[in-house]
Amino acid sequence: MTYERDSIRPMAGYVPGEQPTDPGVIKLNTNENPWPPSPRVMQALTGIEADTLRRYPSPGAAAVVEAAARLHDVRPDQIVTTNGGDELLRLAITTFVPPGRPIGIAEPSYSLYPVLAAIHDSPVHRVALEADWALPADFAAAMNAAGVPLTLLVNPHAPSGRLLDAASISALAGELQGVLLVDEAYVDFADPGHDVVSLIHRHDNLMILRTLSKGYSLAGLRVGYGLGSAGLIQPIATKTRDSYSVDAVADQLGAVALTDQTSARSSWHAVREERRRLTAALRAHGFEVPDSQANFCLARVPDDAAANAGALYTALKDQGILVRHFDTPRLHNHLRISVGTPAQNDALLAALLPMR
Amino acid sequence: MTYERDSIRPMAGYVPGEQPTDPGVIKLNTNENPWPPSPRVMQALTGIEADTLRRYPSPGAAAVVEAAARLHDVRPDQIVTTNGGDELLRLAITTFVPPGRPIGIAEPSYSLYPVLAAIHDSPVHRVALEADWALPADFAAAMNAAGVPLTLLVNPHAPSGRLLDAASISALAGELQGVLLVDEAYVDFADPGHDVVSLIHRHDNLMILRTLSKGYSLAGLRVGYGLGSAGLIQPIATKTRDSYSVDAVADQLGAVALTDQTSARSSWHAVREERRRLTAALRAHGFEVPDSQANFCLARVPDDAAANAGALYTALKDQGILVRHFDTPRLHNHLRISVGTPAQNDALLAALLPMR
Repeated sequence: MTYERDSIRPMAGYVPGEQPTDPGVIKLNTNENPWPPSPRVMQALTGIEADTLRRYPSPGAAAVVEAAARLHDVRPDQIVTTNGGDELLRLAITTFVPPGRPIGIAEPSYSLYPVLAAIHDSPVHRVALEADWALPADFAAAMNAAGVPLTLLVNPHAPSGRLLDAASISALAGELQGVLLVDEAYVDFADPGHDVVSLIHRHDNLMILRTLSKGYSLAGLRVGYGLGSAGLIQPIATKTRDSYSVDAVADQLGAVALTDQTSARSSWHAVREERRRLTAALRAHGFEVPDSQANFCLARVPDDAAANAGALYTALKDQGILVRHFDTPRLHNHLRISVGTPAQNDALLAALLPMR
Repeated sequence: MTYERDSIRPMAGYVPGEQPTDPGVIKLNTNENPWPPSPRVMQALTGIEADTLRRYPSPGAAAVVEAAARLHDVRPDQIVTTNGGDELLRLAITTFVPPGRPIGIAEPSYSLYPVLAAIHDSPVHRVALEADWALPADFAAAMNAAGVPLTLLVNPHAPSGRLLDAASISALAGELQGVLLVDEAYVDFADPGHDVVSLIHRHDNLMILRTLSKGYSLAGLRVGYGLGSAGLIQPIATKTRDSYSVDAVADQLGAVALTDQTSARSSWHAVREERRRLTAALRAHGFEVPDSQANFCLARVPDDAAANAGALYTALKDQGILVRHFDTPRLHNHLRISVGTPAQNDALLAALLPMR
C-alpha cells in the first residue's frame, strides 16, 4: 500500500550534483566557490556558545536580515532569510501560485524549478531560450498569455552564465502581470556595476533571490535571502516560512560573512580572473563557451572531438575530476565546469584538452 | 496590488514563543532543555573545517541518518532527516495530503498544525480531547469517516504532557485508513520503557517524528528526523524534501549528539526529577496539573486565585520569567511552564505561588 498522493507518485525528485566524500576529488560540478569563507566566519564559529545551540534561533534569522538590509540599503521588512536560495523558490511558489496554476520558466534553467512545480501540482510554462541563451523578445507576453502568476528567471543564467542587464529585467518586471523572481544565485561573480536590487523600489512584483552559498563560500550553511517590496516579502516572512528554517549557527555566521565584504569580493575577483583564463583556454581548443558572468563555464564539445560530452564527463571522473553533464536534448553535448582555483583549473585543462 | 494567493491572504501565521535577547530572562516558555548539549557537540563544533562550510552538505544529511539508524536499530531507508521536526510535519502534509483534503488533529494540540494545513489549502478535521486530555475512543473512526489521509498526533501530548501508551498507538495505526504521524518531540523525557518506534515494522502507515531540539538541547541547530516504513519515508527523502535543508554543521553535530546517549540521558533524568518537584509544588498550591511525561507542565490556575492565567503570565514576565499562555477557550486559564533547572524552577515557584 502506498500513501503518496497521486501527483507525487510518478515524480522524479531533484538530483543534486554528486558530493564525493573523498577530499582528493577535484570538485568542479556544483558551483561552489573555490576559495574559503571569510576568516572572521571561522573565528565566529569557534565562539558559538552552548546556549546558542540549546535555545531556539531567532525566528526569521534576524542577524542575517539586519546585515543584508545594511548591505543593500533596504528596510528589514524588504528581506526574508531562507534555508539557502532553494527555500525561497519553494516559498515563492507556495505564496504566489494557486496549486494547478502554471509556473513560468525559460528553458533550459535550474533543474529544481520543475521539481518544485510538480510538488505544488503546478504545470510548468516553458519558453525556450534563443540559440545564444538570450531571452526571446516575447518572453513576458508569453507568460502573461499563459496566466503565469510567478516567473522564475535565473540571472546570470544557469547553465550558460549569460547575464541579462538590469534595464531588461526592469522592462520584464514592468511587463509581467505576475511576480518575477530573479534568481541571482551567481550574481556576485558578475563584473561590478550590475545592480538589480535597486529595482525593487520601482516594481512591487519583483523579488530578488540571493544566496551565501556561492559568493560567500557558505554552501554548507544554507543561508539565502529574498529582497522585494514589503508586500511581496511579508507574506513569506510571517505566514508561509517555517519560523526557524535558518538555524542559529547559520544566522550568526551568515551575518558575519555579509559584513566582511573585503574577503568575499577578493574571492569574486579571483573567480573572474580564472573564468577568463578557463574560457580562453577552452575556446582555443575548439570548445564553444559563451561569455559567463557566473562562477562556471558552459563548454560545448566540438563536433569533431574524439569523444562526446558524456564520455568526457566519465573520463574526467575516472581521473578524479568532477564536472556536470546534463543529459537533456539541448545540453547533452555540453559540460558545465565550475571555476576552481588556478591549480584545479590547470588540472581540469590538462586532463580535458588532450581528450578533445 | 497584492500577489498573495487567495488562501494565504487571510491567514494568520504561526506565532512562535518569545525569544528574548536578554540573557537574564528565565525562559520557561518554549520547552527548551535547560541543560546544555553534550560537551562532545561543543568540541565537534570547534573542529568544523572551512571546507565543510564552503561545500554543499551531504544531501539528506547522511551523518544524522546513520547515527539515528544505529540508535533505533532501523535501516537508513527508514529514516529521513529534516530541518527540525517542523519540516517533517510540512513534508508529511505535502507528500500524503492532496490539497483540499483534510488533515486530522486532536484539539488542543501544537498550534503549527492548522497553520501548515492552511498553507496547503487543507481544512482541519478536529476532534476534541476529553476533559482529562485523553483521546476519545472514536478518534480513529472519526478520522476515517472524514476521509482524513494524514492524522497528526503529538505524544506526549502538548500542552498537557499526557502520554498515550504504545499499545494504544498501535491500535490507532491499525484502525486508521490514512497515515498516522506521531509527533514525539517530547518523548525523550517520558519515563523509560515507552517505545513506539518498533511499531513502524508492523504498521506501514505509521511515521514517528523525532527532534534533537529538546532531548539533545539543540533547538538552535534545527535537526529532526522521521522514522517509518521505507514506503512512507522514501517519497519524502527523494522527492519532496529540499535536498540540503539540514546544513553541514547541523548534520555533523546532530550525529555527535545522537551518539552521546549518556549526556542526553542524564539531562532527561534531571528534567524528570524537576518535573516531579514542580508538579508537586504547583498541586500543593491548588493548581491542577496533569501527570506530564514531557519537559513541561500544564498548570490550571485555581478558580479562587487572585489573578487569572493571563494576569499571572504578565506578572511573571514583568519579573523576568517567561512562561506560555494560550488565549484559547479551553486553555485561557492555564499556564504551560517548561521544566527548568532547579534554580529556574525555584525562581518560578517563588514568583508564582504567592500570586495565586
